[in-house]
Amino acid sequence: MTTRREQTSGESRDLILAAAAELFASKGYRPTTFADVAERSGISRGSIPWHFGSKEGLLLAVLERSVQQLIVDLGPEPFPDAATELERMARGLEALFSRPNARLFVTLLVEAMEPDSPIHDRYAAMHETLRANGRRALENLLPSYGPRLDALTAALVGAAIGIHQQWLINPTQVDLAQSLDALRDMVLATVRAAGQQ
Amino acid sequence: MTTRREQTSGESRDLILAAAAELFASKGYRPTTFADVAERSGISRGSIPWHFGSKEGLLLAVLERSVQQLIVDLGPEPFPDAATELERMARGLEALFSRPNARLFVTLLVEAMEPDSPIHDRYAAMHETLRANGRRALENLLPSYGPRLDALTAALVGAAIGIHQQWLINPTQVDLAQSLDALRDMVLATVRAAGQQ
Repeated sequence: MTTRREQTSGESRDLILAAAAELFASKGYRPTTFADVAERSGISRGSIPWHFGSKEGLLLAVLERSVQQLIVDLGPEPFPDAATELERMARGLEALFSRPNARLFVTLLVEAMEPDSPIHDRYAAMHETLRANGRRALENLLPSYGPRLDALTAALVGAAIGIHQQWLINPTQVDLAQSLDALRDMVLATVRAAGQQ
Repeated sequence: MTTRREQTSGESRDLILAAAAELFASKGYRPTTFADVAERSGISRGSIPWHFGSKEGLLLAVLERSVQQLIVDLGPEPFPDAATELERMARGLEALFSRPNARLFVTLLVEAMEPDSPIHDRYAAMHETLRANGRRALENLLPSYGPRLDALTAALVGAAIGIHQQWLINPTQVDLAQSLDALRDMVLATVRAAGQQ
């Protein structure tokens, strides 16, 4: 049972997250202050660190919401066939990366790299969530891969990360959709080769 | 013909680069000052900005040297066969990423993301050098791919970038060598599928 207090707290959290996502996208991460988020969300300034600890914590929560939305969008249904499933994953990543907030994944990366950083573990956990979900999808496509699926999943999540960054740095030279298509086709060739063995 | 002045200038540049690479690896990028680099290299402090413009410019030059070294290591010889060539590329990337300085690619990324940043264009050019070299290697393996090679190369350079970052963030969860092996195997499956068409 959800108590009134929990409900209110969850609602406040959602309002803060929605306001922060809009401000980070429109105004940028660094210039946005807790006071801005408080004003836009209608939630008192003091309750923001209570919910998220720090501005980095707030940013991570915004990003985690994007990752969760991708996982929901991709859905839990079984796959009609490998080609359709891989196409769905490619388009899901394209939609995720096309959101204005997605560039904030990179904003946090430098800080998350330091093992002592307060956000290192949460950023690492976000990578693991992405790999775990990718692995679950691939288990059905590549049942013969066994333990090699961990490395394959890291390579594929890596490809998504690195395509996104190259496109952010140089959108005229790197075509986001075509690069994700090329990745989809490589996985499809891998699935077909494994099926022939 | 190289004049005495050019030779001296080139030598100074090399000494500064070698000293900076050591300091960035041992002490970290942010704590290292021009004075530190001057002391270690024996080159006057004032000539460092003359050669590299800024500390970011010096870091980019250190990284560009790593990329050039990778390209030299991979060599221009023709490929004995696709499997051997792809193995050689995987091991070249593994060696590049294992260098202590390689994590500095990520240090610069956030700043390079801003289109107005002074290092944006040089960072974009470094990505393009990696893609151009990858593309040249793949042209021999996938002659039927034609213009689709651009997107494939972006996907593969992306995979290398993203494997590296996941491994830096969580080296106990992500195996660098095995992830690069998985990438090698996907390209091999793609090459073989294209050959069968």
